[in-house]
Amino acid sequence: MAEGEAVEVPNKQVILRDYVSGFPKESDFMVRTSTIRLKVPEGSNAVLVKNLYLSCDPYMRSRMTKLEGSYVESFVPGSPISGFGASRVLDSGHPNFKKGDLIWGITGWEEYSLITTPETLFKIEHTDVPLSYYTGLLGMPGLTAYAGFYDVASPKKGEYVFISAASGAVGQLVGQFAKLLGCFVVGSAGSKAKVDLLKNKFGFDEAVNYKEEQDLEAALKMYFPNGIDIYFENVGGKMLDAVLVNMRLYGRIPMCGMISQYNYEQPEGVHNLFCLIAKRIRMQGFLVFDYYHMYPKFLDTVLPLIREGKITYVEDIVEGLENGPAALIGLFYGRNVGKQVVIVARE
Amino acid sequence: MAEGEAVEVPNKQVILRDYVSGFPKESDFMVRTSTIRLKVPEGSNAVLVKNLYLSCDPYMRSRMTKLEGSYVESFVPGSPISGFGASRVLDSGHPNFKKGDLIWGITGWEEYSLITTPETLFKIEHTDVPLSYYTGLLGMPGLTAYAGFYDVASPKKGEYVFISAASGAVGQLVGQFAKLLGCFVVGSAGSKAKVDLLKNKFGFDEAVNYKEEQDLEAALKMYFPNGIDIYFENVGGKMLDAVLVNMRLYGRIPMCGMISQYNYEQPEGVHNLFCLIAKRIRMQGFLVFDYYHMYPKFLDTVLPLIREGKITYVEDIVEGLENGPAALIGLFYGRNVGKQVVIVARE
Repeated sequence: MAEGEAVEVPNKQVILRDYVSGFPKESDFMVRTSTIRLKVPEGSNAVLVKNLYLSCDPYMRSRMTKLEGSYVESFVPGSPISGFGASRVLDSGHPNFKKGDLIWGITGWEEYSLITTPETLFKIEHTDVPLSYYTGLLGMPGLTAYAGFYDVASPKKGEYVFISAASGAVGQLVGQFAKLLGCFVVGSAGSKAKVDLLKNKFGFDEAVNYKEEQDLEAALKMYFPNGIDIYFENVGGKMLDAVLVNMRLYGRIPMCGMISQYNYEQPEGVHNLFCLIAKRIRMQGFLVFDYYHMYPKFLDTVLPLIREGKITYVEDIVEGLENGPAALIGLFYGRNVGKQVVIVARE
Repeated sequence: MAEGEAVEVPNKQVILRDYVSGFPKESDFMVRTSTIRLKVPEGSNAVLVKNLYLSCDPYMRSRMTKLEGSYVESFVPGSPISGFGASRVLDSGHPNFKKGDLIWGITGWEEYSLITTPETLFKIEHTDVPLSYYTGLLGMPGLTAYAGFYDVASPKKGEYVFISAASGAVGQLVGQFAKLLGCFVVGSAGSKAKVDLLKNKFGFDEAVNYKEEQDLEAALKMYFPNGIDIYFENVGGKMLDAVLVNMRLYGRIPMCGMISQYNYEQPEGVHNLFCLIAKRIRMQGFLVFDYYHMYPKFLDTVLPLIREGKITYVEDIVEGLENGPAALIGLFYGRNVGKQVVIVARE
């Protein structure tokens, strides 16, 4: 072949059929096979990657909707969806990346992707930990947990911490950070398996199965007779209302997500906001995109904790891109136990 | 008379008949005449005062309810209510106060009060400004505005500021602080008279009569095409929802009060809290009680501004304790134009 030519290969892709309303269904997606040339176009600074692991994250729900002026962009109906992944560089037009490098960042839900914004990618330098971790613990959700807990929550040793969606990618890490700091930590999750994980695997002090509680407010009162200093908010809605009345004076609520609300056309109303005044509570939304500059410091903190076994991590791994849509929508039904990952290819 | 004896005098008092539900009515109160001895009991450190001005404040609504574990205490049915006032000391058992001093702080809604917690009182040192100001601009509401704006809101020159209940004791001052800092300031209020006050008296850039807006969200969009950096929250409910979608990235919402909600058994739901995440907004409740240590600094800042005419202040003054209940409940119907004060006595 002449210079610049390359074989076209089949490229399996996950396509969004149309914008989604209500709970997403598997039939909102289809898997089709396209073709791709495994070479970066002449003169482009793009990067061509083979995708190995893809991350299923709750924020992706909003991308299934027609968005205007949001912090993320809508998926394009009829095109492959995208999300965080860990991938191998096959060809590069960008000076920071070369063939053979491993990267994590936003890539396509397909076997191979041409990434035209390589400046958004992170090079993976440490491979003594599982590569899939870079879709979670060592990637976007991990940095989210780190920034949300240490920066937004202003935590202090001995404080009372409550985490919703606690067995998810972000929650499990926040809980472990809080335990390492010497906090009392309770998490909520939606099944016995998840609750067991929180208590027996991640070392939470207590765990609540919110689906089995008739009265969340009373349940929280039982776990936190002195109230909650920090509520790490992942779910919104009724849980937030129940937490607000159980907060302590000068409490903090880092707002990371509201997964309970993403499938509603009209979000539920939150009624107990006056508690913010009476208890002088700070409720603060944040997005990980504002904290990417902290990534090297985050790695310096977390990698040793993983190597020393002081932080553990549970993934729910699904094999094969064709099983991706089911895994992704499973998030919104709480089907995953631990961080939901899709393996596209084992090298 | 022998040492320690004193004449008993009639003492007109405003009594809460019983706990209030829904909007308070004049008939929830009665005025009765008791008697009081104008002398501090032997050995007590109390202070005996003649009340001159009493302050009508929105937070008093919650004290009309049976409260448990709140930041304020319920009024006692059958007893005189209490609130902030400016008063003359007639007798004192406390070393910080002597006969003839002027004070402001929590006192009874009555002609004369025996104050048994004199450590909560502030001595009035500057009398070149109207004494009534110490129930508002130079008292609790003034310090509330100062702390909420400068400390909680983290304001910057040129920012876009929106204030609800803007012609009230706190709102009018926040707006003037914001103008002095070089912000663009819009206030909302519920009548033409109040809106005129905001624009023509307090120098707000724009003012909204929220009762005349069919679509608050659209109205705010018109006044703030680039969005709101700081929302000084005094009302809650639907207004908060309309503001949330109009906030800018990294906005701040100091939460001072929620007067639109105080008369509901179940507060309205707020639906747009996801905006806090997408826009990285900090919403923070505060209470003036945490800022009393800033009072001297506050006076040093605000007294010169008053003397130089750089800050103006509008009061709605009602004459006579017997007209107090109507003035107090008028707050919750938006009847007052400016800070609502009751004159008990002119010296």
